[in-house]
Amino acid sequence: MHIEQRITSLREIMEHKGISVSVIFNPDHQFYLSGFKALLYSRPIVMLVDEEKTRLIVPGLEEIHAREDAIVDEVQVYYEHPEMAEKGTNYKEIIKNILSKYPDGSKIGIDTSFTPTDVTVYFKDLGYKIVDIGRNIVEMRYVKDQEEIRLMEEAGRLVNLAVSETLQSCRPGMTEIEIDSRGNAALFSETAKNHPNATLDLVVMSPSGIERSVMPHVFSNTRTLQRGDVVIHSRQVGLNGYRAELERTFFIGEPSEKQKKAFEAARLAQEVALDFIKPGVTAAEVDNVARQVIEKEGYSEYFIHRVGHGIGVSAHEEPYLRFDNNLVLEEGMAFSIEPGIYIPGVGGFRHSDTVVLTSNGHKCITDYPRDLNSLIFE
Amino acid sequence: MHIEQRITSLREIMEHKGISVSVIFNPDHQFYLSGFKALLYSRPIVMLVDEEKTRLIVPGLEEIHAREDAIVDEVQVYYEHPEMAEKGTNYKEIIKNILSKYPDGSKIGIDTSFTPTDVTVYFKDLGYKIVDIGRNIVEMRYVKDQEEIRLMEEAGRLVNLAVSETLQSCRPGMTEIEIDSRGNAALFSETAKNHPNATLDLVVMSPSGIERSVMPHVFSNTRTLQRGDVVIHSRQVGLNGYRAELERTFFIGEPSEKQKKAFEAARLAQEVALDFIKPGVTAAEVDNVARQVIEKEGYSEYFIHRVGHGIGVSAHEEPYLRFDNNLVLEEGMAFSIEPGIYIPGVGGFRHSDTVVLTSNGHKCITDYPRDLNSLIFE
Repeated sequence: MHIEQRITSLREIMEHKGISVSVIFNPDHQFYLSGFKALLYSRPIVMLVDEEKTRLIVPGLEEIHAREDAIVDEVQVYYEHPEMAEKGTNYKEIIKNILSKYPDGSKIGIDTSFTPTDVTVYFKDLGYKIVDIGRNIVEMRYVKDQEEIRLMEEAGRLVNLAVSETLQSCRPGMTEIEIDSRGNAALFSETAKNHPNATLDLVVMSPSGIERSVMPHVFSNTRTLQRGDVVIHSRQVGLNGYRAELERTFFIGEPSEKQKKAFEAARLAQEVALDFIKPGVTAAEVDNVARQVIEKEGYSEYFIHRVGHGIGVSAHEEPYLRFDNNLVLEEGMAFSIEPGIYIPGVGGFRHSDTVVLTSNGHKCITDYPRDLNSLIFE
Repeated sequence: MHIEQRITSLREIMEHKGISVSVIFNPDHQFYLSGFKALLYSRPIVMLVDEEKTRLIVPGLEEIHAREDAIVDEVQVYYEHPEMAEKGTNYKEIIKNILSKYPDGSKIGIDTSFTPTDVTVYFKDLGYKIVDIGRNIVEMRYVKDQEEIRLMEEAGRLVNLAVSETLQSCRPGMTEIEIDSRGNAALFSETAKNHPNATLDLVVMSPSGIERSVMPHVFSNTRTLQRGDVVIHSRQVGLNGYRAELERTFFIGEPSEKQKKAFEAARLAQEVALDFIKPGVTAAEVDNVARQVIEKEGYSEYFIHRVGHGIGVSAHEEPYLRFDNNLVLEEGMAFSIEPGIYIPGVGGFRHSDTVVLTSNGHKCITDYPRDLNSLIFE
C-alpha cells in the first residue's frame, strides 16, 4: 500500500490549513492511512499524524496486533490492568501528552463528521482549536490507486463466486440466512485456497417475498423461501480491506406480469447507467439517466434511492451518485450501479454491479447474468 | 419490549436536567428506545424524544421498514430522489424544523460520546445548548428486564449450539473461517426451525496458532489449522437484538507443558470469578479475584484486559468489570466473564461465558465444557 504517499498528501493539506496535528477516529480513514484494521467494540483506537510522526493509540489487547500490522512510526498503548496503569489507562490521557508539545491555540485536525462530541469538547477545554480534516481524507480516497483496484478486482471475483453459489443452490423451503450461508461457504473455501492469511469482510442479505423485498436494507432472517417469491440477494465481499458489491433480484418460480415489468425497468435502468458512466460525466447525470428510464416506465416514485455509491475501503463511501451531486467523475473512481424499484404489494427489484472508471469508460468488476430468464429458479 | 417505560424514564431525566428534546444517534440506544434495528451504512438515522412525541428520522429507503417496525409516534423521512426533494434531502434540515419550536438557548440532550462533532456544531450554531443524555441512557441499560433476559437466554442456547458444532467439527487442514462457518450453519438451521422471522447478529472469530491466538481481537482468516495449534474460538449470537457470548480455547493435538499451565491458570481464574460474581460486589472486585489467581501463577503481565464487560444490546456495553470501576453490581445486570492470558511464543488462553445476576448469585446462560481434556481435538 502507498501509505507513505498518502501521509505526504495529508501533511501537505495540514500545512496549507495550518493544522499542527490530525487526530483521526474514523476506522476506515485509519486503515487507509496506516494499513491497520481492527475489530472495534468498546475500546477506541486513535491515529495521530503530525509533521514528524504517525502514531496509533491502541488498547492493551491490540498492542501486539498493531505493532505487527500497522504502518506507523509509533504505537502507544493504554492499559486496563493495574500492573501497567501508570502508563495510562485512558486514550485521552495519551493524546493529551502528545498534544502538550503544541502551544495553546494550535489547530487540531479532526474528522468532524465522525469524531464524537466529547472528544472535541476535551480538545477545546485543553485550549486547542478544531479544524476539519475529514473532508480532505474523504476526497483523497475518491480515486483508487493500482493496488487498491487490484484488490477490488479480486474481491469482485470472490463476490461473483458467492452470488453464483447462493443463486444456484436456492430452493423453496430454504431460509434467507441459509441461502446466504451457501454462498459464504463457497467464498470461504475459495479464499482459503487462493489467499492464505487473507481477511474477509462480508455483507450479505436476502430480503425475500413481496413484503420484505421492498425494504432495501434489512438483515436476512429465518423466513422460508416460497414459490412465487421475489428475492433481492445483496452481497459485498471485502478482501484485505477492499470491497466489491454484486446484487441480483431473482424469482422462485414464474413472476407475475407486474413483477416482470418492474424487474425489466430496473434492469434496463441499470444497463443504461452502466453504458453511460465514464470520466467527465457528473454523478448527477448518472443518476439522471437511470431515473429517466424508470420515469418512462411510470415508476419514478418507487425509485427511492440514489443510483449508486462509491466503494472501496467502506461499504458505502463518497462520491455518491445522487441527483444533487454535480461532481465530475474521474478515472480510478469506483462505484456501485444499482437503480431500484420498490412497489408495495408487488415487490422490490434491484441489481447492483461494481465498476472502476478507466481513462475512457469503465471496467465492470462483478459479473452474473442480469436477464429475467437467468434469474428464475424452481 | 417495555419501550413505553423506557421513554417515561428518559423523559423524567430530561425534565430533571431541563432538556427540551433529546437527539439520539447511537443505534443501540435507538433500538433500546424504539425497537428499530437498521443496517447502517452511509445514511444517518436519528431518534428524537421530547415531552410530546418520539420520532425517528430515516432515509427514504428505510421508510417502509421504519413504519412497520419502529415503536415511535412519528416517522419522518429525508429523500434522495428528486420527486420528493422538496420534503427534505438531508436529516439536518428535518431536525432543524422540529427544533424550531424551541426557543433560542433551549437545551438539547445528545449522546456526547457518540454524536459526531459536526452535528453538535450545527445545533450550537442554531442557538441551542448541548447537554449530555448519553450517560443516562447507558445507565438505564445496566439492568435488564425479564423480556431482555428471556431473549438473552435464548441467544445463549443458540451460541452453545454454534460453539459446540464448530468445536466438534474442527480438524487439521480446515481454515479459521471454515470452522466458524460450521457453527454458523448449525445456528442458521436451528434458528430457522424455532424462531421464524428472527434476526440474528453474529460475531465470530477463531485466531489460531501461537502467533495469532495472542491477539485477542482479530478477524478470522484463511490460515489452516495445524496439529499443535492453540485456538481461541470466540462467538456472540444476538437474537432479535439481544446477545450472549461464549468462547473456548482449544487445541489441535496435545498442548505443550507451558500451554497446559497457562490454560489451567486462565480456566481457574474464570472459575473463581464465576464463583464470586453476585449482586453487592463491585466490578473491580470481580476483576481482582481473577487477577489474583493469574498473579499467583506468575502470569499477571499477560492478563492484558479487564475480566469482562456488560452485554445485552451491544457486543460490549457498560458496566465494565475493570480494576478501576467501583460500581456495585445489581440483580439483572449481565456480563461476560473472560480472563485471558496471552504469552508471546506460547499462545493465548481465554474462555468466556455470559452470566445474568440473580437476587443472590447469578445464572450462567452459556455452556460448554471448560476442562482441558474436553478441549483437545485430533
